[in-house]
Amino acid sequence: MDTPHAAPRPSTARKPRTERGRQTRRRLIDAAAAEFGEKGFHDASISGITQRAGTALGSFYTYFTSKDEIFSALVHDLSERVRNRAADVVAPERNAVDTEREALAAFLTFAREHKEIYRIIDEAEFVDPQSYRTHYESAAARILQRLRGGAERGEIRPDIDEAHAWAIMGMNVFLGLRYSIWSDERAVEDIARVANAVLRDGLAPKD
Amino acid sequence: MDTPHAAPRPSTARKPRTERGRQTRRRLIDAAAAEFGEKGFHDASISGITQRAGTALGSFYTYFTSKDEIFSALVHDLSERVRNRAADVVAPERNAVDTEREALAAFLTFAREHKEIYRIIDEAEFVDPQSYRTHYESAAARILQRLRGGAERGEIRPDIDEAHAWAIMGMNVFLGLRYSIWSDERAVEDIARVANAVLRDGLAPKD
Repeated sequence: MDTPHAAPRPSTARKPRTERGRQTRRRLIDAAAAEFGEKGFHDASISGITQRAGTALGSFYTYFTSKDEIFSALVHDLSERVRNRAADVVAPERNAVDTEREALAAFLTFAREHKEIYRIIDEAEFVDPQSYRTHYESAAARILQRLRGGAERGEIRPDIDEAHAWAIMGMNVFLGLRYSIWSDERAVEDIARVANAVLRDGLAPKD
Repeated sequence: MDTPHAAPRPSTARKPRTERGRQTRRRLIDAAAAEFGEKGFHDASISGITQRAGTALGSFYTYFTSKDEIFSALVHDLSERVRNRAADVVAPERNAVDTEREALAAFLTFAREHKEIYRIIDEAEFVDPQSYRTHYESAAARILQRLRGGAERGEIRPDIDEAHAWAIMGMNVFLGLRYSIWSDERAVEDIARVANAVLRDGLAPKD
Protein backbone atom coordinates (compact mmCIF):
# COMPACT_ATOMS: atom_id res chain seq x y z
CA MET A 1 0.00 0.00 0.00
CA ASP A 2 2.34 2.65 -1.18
CA THR A 3 -0.09 5.25 -2.44
CA PRO A 4 -1.00 7.88 0.10
CA HIS A 5 -4.41 8.67 -1.38
CA ALA A 6 -6.16 10.48 1.40
CA ALA A 7 -9.62 9.10 2.00
CA PRO A 8 -12.17 11.83 2.64
CA ARG A 9 -13.99 9.47 4.97
CA PRO A 10 -11.98 7.60 7.54
CA SER A 11 -14.76 5.09 8.14
CA THR A 12 -14.87 1.86 6.17
CA ALA A 13 -16.75 1.94 2.88
CA ARG A 14 -20.47 1.39 3.00
CA LYS A 15 -22.41 -1.42 1.43
CA PRO A 16 -25.13 -0.21 -0.93
CA ARG A 17 -28.61 -0.51 0.53
CA THR A 18 -30.64 0.01 -2.63
CA GLU A 19 -30.72 -1.73 -5.99
CA ARG A 20 -29.60 1.51 -7.62
CA GLY A 21 -26.70 1.67 -5.15
CA ARG A 22 -25.74 -1.89 -5.97
CA GLN A 23 -25.71 -1.06 -9.67
CA THR A 24 -23.51 1.98 -9.09
CA ARG A 25 -21.06 -0.02 -7.00
CA ARG A 26 -21.04 -2.73 -9.70
CA ARG A 27 -20.31 -0.12 -12.38
CA LEU A 28 -17.43 1.22 -10.30
CA ILE A 29 -15.96 -2.25 -9.83
CA ASP A 30 -16.25 -3.01 -13.55
CA ALA A 31 -14.68 0.34 -14.36
CA ALA A 32 -11.89 -0.40 -11.88
CA ALA A 33 -11.21 -3.71 -13.65
CA ALA A 34 -10.78 -1.84 -16.94
CA GLU A 35 -8.72 0.97 -15.38
CA PHE A 36 -6.36 -1.23 -13.33
CA GLY A 37 -6.16 -3.84 -16.10
CA GLU A 38 -5.16 -1.26 -18.69
CA LYS A 39 -2.98 1.10 -16.67
CA GLY A 40 -1.75 -0.94 -13.73
CA PHE A 41 -2.24 0.11 -10.12
CA HIS A 42 0.20 3.00 -9.97
CA ASP A 43 -0.98 4.80 -13.09
CA ALA A 44 -4.67 4.10 -12.45
CA SER A 45 -6.67 6.90 -10.85
CA ILE A 46 -9.96 7.31 -9.06
CA SER A 47 -11.04 9.91 -11.62
CA GLY A 48 -10.18 7.45 -14.39
CA ILE A 49 -12.45 4.90 -12.69
CA THR A 50 -15.37 7.30 -12.24
CA GLN A 51 -15.03 8.53 -15.82
CA ARG A 52 -15.20 4.97 -17.11
CA ALA A 53 -18.14 4.26 -14.81
CA GLY A 54 -19.94 7.45 -15.79
CA THR A 55 -20.44 8.37 -12.14
CA ALA A 56 -19.62 11.46 -10.13
CA LEU A 57 -16.55 11.43 -7.91
CA GLY A 58 -18.87 11.64 -4.91
CA SER A 59 -20.41 8.29 -5.84
CA PHE A 60 -16.98 6.69 -5.60
CA TYR A 61 -16.55 7.90 -2.05
CA THR A 62 -19.99 6.64 -1.13
CA TYR A 63 -18.71 3.09 -1.56
CA PHE A 64 -14.91 3.24 -1.35
CA THR A 65 -12.44 5.27 0.65
CA SER A 66 -9.37 5.01 -1.59
CA LYS A 67 -7.77 3.54 -4.68
CA ASP A 68 -6.28 0.82 -2.48
CA GLU A 69 -9.71 -0.08 -1.19
CA ILE A 70 -11.40 -0.42 -4.57
CA PHE A 71 -8.41 -2.45 -5.76
CA SER A 72 -8.88 -4.90 -2.87
CA ALA A 73 -12.63 -4.96 -3.53
CA LEU A 74 -11.91 -5.74 -7.18
CA VAL A 75 -9.59 -8.64 -6.32
CA HIS A 76 -12.27 -9.98 -3.98
CA ASP A 77 -14.90 -9.55 -6.71
CA LEU A 78 -12.78 -11.42 -9.28
CA SER A 79 -12.18 -14.22 -6.77
CA GLU A 80 -15.93 -14.49 -6.22
CA ARG A 81 -16.68 -14.56 -9.93
CA VAL A 82 -14.10 -17.28 -10.57
CA ARG A 83 -15.60 -19.20 -7.63
CA ASN A 84 -19.11 -18.84 -9.01
CA ARG A 85 -18.09 -20.05 -12.48
CA ALA A 86 -16.54 -23.16 -10.95
CA ALA A 87 -19.52 -23.70 -8.64
CA ASP A 88 -21.83 -23.63 -11.67
CA VAL A 89 -20.27 -26.80 -13.07
CA VAL A 90 -20.73 -28.87 -9.93
CA ALA A 91 -23.68 -31.20 -10.50
CA PRO A 92 -24.79 -34.38 -8.72
CA GLU A 93 -24.47 -36.54 -11.83
CA ARG A 94 -20.95 -35.30 -12.68
CA ASN A 95 -18.00 -37.22 -11.26
CA ALA A 96 -14.98 -35.55 -9.67
CA VAL A 97 -12.62 -35.78 -12.66
CA ASP A 98 -15.24 -34.50 -15.11
CA THR A 99 -16.04 -31.68 -12.68
CA GLU A 100 -12.41 -30.57 -12.76
CA ARG A 101 -12.49 -30.59 -16.57
CA GLU A 102 -15.59 -28.42 -16.63
CA ALA A 103 -14.16 -26.13 -13.93
CA LEU A 104 -11.02 -25.63 -16.04
CA ALA A 105 -13.09 -24.96 -19.17
CA ALA A 106 -15.19 -22.44 -17.22
CA PHE A 107 -12.05 -20.72 -15.94
CA LEU A 108 -10.44 -20.56 -19.40
CA THR A 109 -13.65 -19.04 -20.78
CA PHE A 110 -13.85 -16.52 -17.93
CA ALA A 111 -10.21 -15.52 -18.48
CA ARG A 112 -10.87 -14.99 -22.20
CA GLU A 113 -13.81 -12.75 -21.35
CA HIS A 114 -11.84 -10.91 -18.67
CA LYS A 115 -8.26 -10.82 -19.88
CA GLU A 116 -7.41 -8.14 -17.34
CA ILE A 117 -7.79 -10.68 -14.51
CA TYR A 118 -4.20 -11.93 -14.70
CA ARG A 119 -2.63 -8.50 -14.54
CA ILE A 120 -4.89 -7.49 -11.65
CA ILE A 121 -4.39 -10.63 -9.55
CA ASP A 122 -0.67 -10.69 -10.30
CA GLU A 123 -0.30 -7.04 -9.33
CA ALA A 124 -2.10 -7.80 -6.06
CA GLU A 125 1.05 -9.70 -5.01
CA PHE A 126 2.72 -6.28 -4.75
CA VAL A 127 -0.17 -3.91 -4.05
CA ASP A 128 -2.25 -6.03 -1.68
CA PRO A 129 -0.34 -9.20 -0.71
CA GLN A 130 -3.01 -10.41 1.68
CA SER A 131 -5.71 -10.37 -1.01
CA TYR A 132 -3.32 -12.15 -3.38
CA ARG A 133 -2.71 -14.89 -0.87
CA THR A 134 -6.37 -15.20 0.06
CA HIS A 135 -7.32 -15.44 -3.61
CA TYR A 136 -5.17 -18.53 -4.14
CA GLU A 137 -5.64 -20.11 -0.72
CA SER A 138 -9.41 -19.97 -1.03
CA ALA A 139 -9.36 -21.28 -4.61
CA ALA A 140 -7.14 -24.20 -3.53
CA ALA A 141 -9.42 -24.88 -0.57
CA ARG A 142 -12.43 -25.12 -2.88
CA ILE A 143 -10.63 -27.51 -5.24
CA LEU A 144 -9.58 -29.62 -2.26
CA GLN A 145 -13.19 -29.72 -1.05
CA ARG A 146 -14.39 -30.87 -4.47
CA LEU A 147 -11.70 -33.55 -4.62
CA ARG A 148 -12.47 -34.81 -1.13
CA GLY A 149 -16.14 -35.10 -2.07
CA GLY A 150 -15.14 -37.19 -5.07
CA ALA A 151 -12.87 -39.35 -2.91
CA GLU A 152 -15.71 -39.96 -0.46
CA ARG A 153 -17.90 -41.07 -3.32
CA GLY A 154 -15.12 -43.41 -4.49
CA GLU A 155 -14.67 -41.59 -7.80
CA ILE A 156 -11.01 -40.75 -7.22
CA ARG A 157 -8.20 -42.02 -5.03
CA PRO A 158 -9.01 -41.89 -1.32
CA ASP A 159 -5.76 -40.28 -0.20
CA ILE A 160 -6.50 -36.84 -1.59
CA ASP A 161 -3.86 -34.37 -0.47
CA GLU A 162 -3.75 -30.58 -0.29
CA ALA A 163 -0.90 -30.77 -2.82
CA HIS A 164 -3.35 -32.21 -5.37
CA ALA A 165 -5.46 -29.08 -5.12
CA TRP A 166 -2.46 -26.75 -5.53
CA ALA A 167 -1.24 -28.82 -8.48
CA ILE A 168 -4.62 -28.55 -10.23
CA MET A 169 -4.88 -24.84 -9.50
CA GLY A 170 -1.41 -24.28 -10.92
CA MET A 171 -2.27 -26.26 -14.06
CA ASN A 172 -5.38 -24.16 -14.54
CA VAL A 173 -3.65 -20.82 -13.96
CA PHE A 174 -0.83 -21.54 -16.41
CA LEU A 175 -3.12 -23.06 -19.04
CA GLY A 176 -5.13 -19.84 -18.74
CA LEU A 177 -2.02 -17.70 -19.12
CA ARG A 178 -0.96 -19.62 -22.24
CA TYR A 179 -4.33 -20.32 -23.87
CA SER A 180 -6.58 -17.49 -22.69
CA ILE A 181 -4.31 -14.48 -22.20
CA TRP A 182 -1.28 -14.84 -24.48
CA SER A 183 -3.25 -16.54 -27.23
CA ASP A 184 -6.83 -17.71 -27.42
CA GLU A 185 -7.01 -19.52 -30.72
CA ARG A 186 -7.33 -23.06 -29.43
CA ALA A 187 -10.77 -24.31 -28.37
CA VAL A 188 -11.30 -24.21 -24.62
CA GLU A 189 -12.83 -27.70 -24.70
CA ASP A 190 -9.73 -29.08 -26.41
CA ILE A 191 -7.34 -27.71 -23.79
CA ALA A 192 -9.61 -28.86 -20.96
CA ARG A 193 -9.84 -32.35 -22.47
CA VAL A 194 -6.06 -32.71 -22.86
CA ALA A 195 -5.28 -31.47 -19.36
CA ASN A 196 -8.11 -33.46 -17.80
CA ALA A 197 -6.90 -36.72 -19.35
CA VAL A 198 -3.81 -36.34 -17.15
CA LEU A 199 -5.98 -36.10 -14.03
CA ARG A 200 -7.91 -39.15 -15.18
CA ASP A 201 -5.15 -41.45 -16.36
CA GLY A 202 -1.81 -39.77 -15.83
CA LEU A 203 0.66 -39.70 -18.68
CA ALA A 204 1.05 -43.47 -18.81
CA PRO A 205 0.80 -45.14 -22.24
CA LYS A 206 -2.52 -46.96 -21.75
CA ASP A 207 -5.22 -48.49 -23.97
CA MET B 1 10.42 0.23 -18.08
CA ASP B 2 9.24 3.20 -16.13
CA THR B 3 12.38 4.21 -14.31
CA PRO B 4 14.34 6.89 -16.06
CA HIS B 5 17.74 5.87 -14.70
CA ALA B 6 20.13 7.45 -17.14
CA ALA B 7 22.80 5.06 -18.29
CA PRO B 8 26.20 6.72 -18.43
CA ARG B 9 27.12 4.48 -21.34
CA PRO B 10 24.71 4.16 -24.23
CA SER B 11 26.39 1.01 -25.53
CA THR B 12 25.14 -2.39 -24.40
CA ALA B 13 26.74 -3.87 -21.31
CA ARG B 14 29.95 -5.74 -21.76
CA LYS B 15 30.63 -9.37 -21.02
CA PRO B 16 33.48 -9.91 -18.58
CA ARG B 17 36.63 -11.15 -20.27
CA THR B 18 38.58 -12.22 -17.19
CA GLU B 19 37.81 -14.63 -14.35
CA ARG B 20 37.95 -11.72 -11.91
CA GLY B 21 35.46 -9.86 -14.11
CA ARG B 22 33.16 -12.86 -14.14
CA GLN B 23 33.29 -13.00 -10.35
CA THR B 24 32.46 -9.30 -10.06
CA ARG B 25 29.52 -9.65 -12.45
CA ARG B 26 28.34 -12.72 -10.48
CA ARG B 27 28.53 -10.76 -7.22
CA LEU B 28 26.51 -7.94 -8.76
CA ILE B 29 23.82 -10.35 -9.99
CA ASP B 30 23.61 -12.04 -6.57
CA ALA B 31 23.42 -8.64 -4.90
CA ALA B 32 20.68 -7.63 -7.34
CA ALA B 33 18.69 -10.75 -6.40
CA ALA B 34 18.87 -9.70 -2.75
CA GLU B 35 18.13 -6.03 -3.46
CA PHE B 36 15.19 -6.59 -5.86
CA GLY B 37 13.88 -9.50 -3.80
CA GLU B 38 13.84 -7.45 -0.61
CA LYS B 39 12.82 -4.02 -1.89
CA GLY B 40 11.06 -4.65 -5.18
CA PHE B 41 12.08 -3.02 -8.43
CA HIS B 42 10.97 0.53 -7.75
CA ASP B 43 12.62 0.90 -4.35
CA ALA B 44 15.77 -0.97 -5.32
CA SER B 45 18.76 1.13 -6.33
CA ILE B 46 22.04 0.65 -8.12
CA SER B 47 23.91 1.95 -5.06
CA GLY B 48 22.03 -0.60 -2.93
CA ILE B 49 23.23 -3.32 -5.30
CA THR B 50 26.86 -2.20 -5.33
CA GLN B 51 26.85 -1.84 -1.54
CA ARG B 52 25.57 -5.39 -1.15
CA ALA B 53 28.12 -6.61 -3.71
CA GLY B 54 30.96 -4.69 -2.08
CA THR B 55 31.94 -3.19 -5.42
CA ALA B 56 32.50 0.37 -6.59
CA LEU B 57 29.77 2.06 -8.59
CA GLY B 58 32.11 2.08 -11.57
CA SER B 59 32.20 -1.71 -11.55
CA PHE B 60 28.44 -1.76 -11.98
CA TYR B 61 28.65 0.34 -15.11
CA THR B 62 31.38 -1.88 -16.49
CA TYR B 63 28.81 -4.65 -16.85
CA PHE B 64 25.37 -3.01 -16.83
CA THR B 65 23.99 0.22 -18.16
CA SER B 66 20.97 0.65 -15.89
CA LYS B 67 18.76 -0.78 -13.16
CA ASP B 68 16.46 -2.10 -15.88
CA GLU B 69 19.32 -3.92 -17.52
CA ILE B 70 20.58 -5.69 -14.41
CA PHE B 71 16.98 -6.64 -13.59
CA SER B 72 16.61 -8.30 -17.01
CA ALA B 73 20.00 -9.96 -16.58
CA LEU B 74 18.87 -11.24 -13.18
CA VAL B 75 15.65 -12.74 -14.61
CA HIS B 76 17.72 -14.39 -17.33
CA ASP B 77 20.17 -15.68 -14.71
CA LEU B 78 17.36 -17.15 -12.57
CA SER B 79 15.86 -18.81 -15.66
CA GLU B 80 19.23 -20.35 -16.44
CA ARG B 81 19.70 -21.59 -12.90
CA VAL B 82 16.25 -23.19 -12.82
CA ARG B 83 17.02 -24.75 -16.20
CA ASN B 84 20.35 -26.14 -14.96
CA ARG B 85 18.77 -27.66 -11.86
CA ALA B 86 16.21 -29.46 -14.02
CA ALA B 87 18.87 -30.52 -16.53
CA ASP B 88 20.88 -32.09 -13.70
CA VAL B 89 18.14 -34.65 -13.02
CA VAL B 90 17.92 -35.92 -16.59
CA ALA B 91 19.71 -39.26 -16.76
CA PRO B 92 19.61 -42.09 -19.32
CA GLU B 93 18.31 -44.64 -16.81
CA ARG B 94 15.49 -42.38 -15.50
CA ASN B 95 12.12 -42.62 -17.22
CA ALA B 96 10.06 -39.58 -18.20
CA VAL B 97 7.64 -39.60 -15.24
CA ASP B 98 10.43 -40.08 -12.69
CA THR B 99 12.37 -37.29 -14.39
CA GLU B 100 9.45 -34.90 -13.86
CA ARG B 101 9.33 -35.88 -10.19
CA GLU B 102 13.02 -35.15 -9.74
CA ALA B 103 12.73 -31.91 -11.73
CA LEU B 104 9.91 -30.78 -9.41
CA ALA B 105 11.93 -31.73 -6.32
CA ALA B 106 14.94 -29.82 -7.69
CA PHE B 107 12.76 -26.77 -8.36
CA LEU B 108 11.19 -26.86 -4.89
CA THR B 109 14.65 -27.06 -3.35
CA PHE B 110 15.95 -24.21 -5.50
CA ALA B 111 12.95 -22.05 -4.54
CA ARG B 112 13.59 -22.74 -0.84
CA GLU B 113 17.19 -21.68 -1.27
CA HIS B 114 16.24 -18.60 -3.32
CA LYS B 115 12.93 -17.46 -1.94
CA GLU B 116 13.30 -14.12 -3.72
CA ILE B 117 12.80 -15.84 -7.08
CA TYR B 118 9.00 -15.60 -7.02
CA ARG B 119 8.91 -11.91 -6.28
CA ILE B 120 11.52 -11.18 -8.94
CA ILE B 121 9.95 -13.28 -11.70
CA ASP B 122 6.45 -12.07 -10.81
CA GLU B 123 7.57 -8.44 -10.84
CA ALA B 124 9.10 -9.02 -14.28
CA GLU B 125 5.52 -9.24 -15.60
CA PHE B 126 5.30 -5.50 -14.94
CA VAL B 127 8.92 -4.33 -15.19
CA ASP B 128 10.13 -6.43 -18.10
CA PRO B 129 7.20 -8.30 -19.72
CA GLN B 130 9.32 -9.82 -22.48
CA SER B 131 11.68 -11.47 -19.98
CA TYR B 132 8.67 -12.72 -18.00
CA ARG B 133 7.17 -14.31 -21.06
CA THR B 134 10.48 -15.77 -22.23
CA HIS B 135 11.07 -17.24 -18.77
CA TYR B 136 7.88 -19.29 -18.91
CA GLU B 137 7.86 -20.04 -22.63
CA SER B 138 11.37 -21.45 -22.48
CA ALA B 139 10.64 -23.47 -19.33
CA ALA B 140 7.53 -24.94 -20.98
CA ALA B 141 9.52 -25.71 -24.15
CA ARG B 142 12.07 -27.64 -22.10
CA ILE B 143 9.38 -29.66 -20.32
CA LEU B 144 7.75 -30.40 -23.67
CA GLN B 145 11.09 -31.59 -25.05
CA ARG B 146 11.58 -33.91 -22.06
CA LEU B 147 8.06 -35.28 -22.45
CA ARG B 148 8.47 -35.86 -26.18
CA GLY B 149 11.68 -37.75 -25.51
CA GLY B 150 9.79 -39.97 -23.05
CA ALA B 151 7.00 -40.49 -25.58
CA GLU B 152 9.50 -41.52 -28.25
CA ARG B 153 10.94 -44.06 -25.84
CA GLY B 154 7.43 -45.36 -25.15
CA GLU B 155 7.55 -44.38 -21.48
CA ILE B 156 4.53 -42.08 -21.66
CA ARG B 157 1.57 -41.58 -23.95
CA PRO B 158 2.55 -40.89 -27.56
CA ASP B 159 0.22 -37.91 -28.07
CA ILE B 160 2.15 -35.47 -25.92
CA ASP B 161 0.72 -31.97 -26.26
CA GLU B 162 2.09 -28.53 -25.51
CA ALA B 163 -0.73 -28.20 -22.96
CA HIS B 164 0.85 -31.06 -20.98
CA ALA B 165 4.01 -29.01 -20.56
CA TRP B 166 2.12 -25.90 -19.44
CA ALA B 167 0.04 -27.98 -17.03
CA ILE B 168 3.17 -29.49 -15.45
CA MET B 169 4.90 -26.10 -15.25
CA GLY B 170 1.83 -24.60 -13.56
CA MET B 171 1.72 -27.47 -11.05
CA ASN B 172 5.37 -26.92 -10.23
CA VAL B 173 5.09 -23.14 -9.89
CA PHE B 174 2.09 -23.29 -7.54
CA LEU B 175 3.48 -26.16 -5.49
CA GLY B 176 6.58 -24.01 -5.09
CA LEU B 177 4.53 -20.99 -4.05
CA ARG B 178 2.68 -23.04 -1.44
CA TYR B 179 5.41 -25.37 -0.19
CA SER B 180 8.65 -23.45 -0.75
CA ILE B 181 7.75 -19.76 -0.39
CA TRP B 182 4.70 -19.47 1.89
CA SER B 183 5.72 -22.42 4.04
CA ASP B 184 8.57 -24.88 3.75
CA GLU B 185 7.87 -27.37 6.49
CA ARG B 186 6.85 -30.32 4.37
CA ALA B 187 9.58 -32.48 2.86
CA VAL B 188 10.30 -31.70 -0.78
CA GLU B 189 10.35 -35.41 -1.63
CA ASP B 190 6.89 -35.85 -0.14
CA ILE B 191 5.34 -33.09 -2.24
CA ALA B 192 7.13 -34.28 -5.37
CA ARG B 193 5.92 -37.85 -4.76
CA VAL B 194 2.27 -36.81 -4.29
CA ALA B 195 2.22 -34.55 -7.34
CA ASN B 196 4.12 -37.03 -9.48
CA ALA B 197 1.68 -39.84 -8.72
CA VAL B 198 -0.92 -37.78 -10.60
CA LEU B 199 1.32 -37.65 -13.67
CA ARG B 200 1.88 -41.38 -13.38
CA ASP B 201 -1.60 -42.66 -12.69
CA GLY B 202 -4.00 -39.71 -12.63
CA LEU B 203 -6.40 -39.39 -9.74
CA ALA B 204 -8.19 -42.64 -10.53
CA PRO B 205 -8.77 -44.95 -7.56
CA LYS B 206 -6.11 -47.53 -8.46
CA ASP B 207 -3.50 -49.20 -6.27
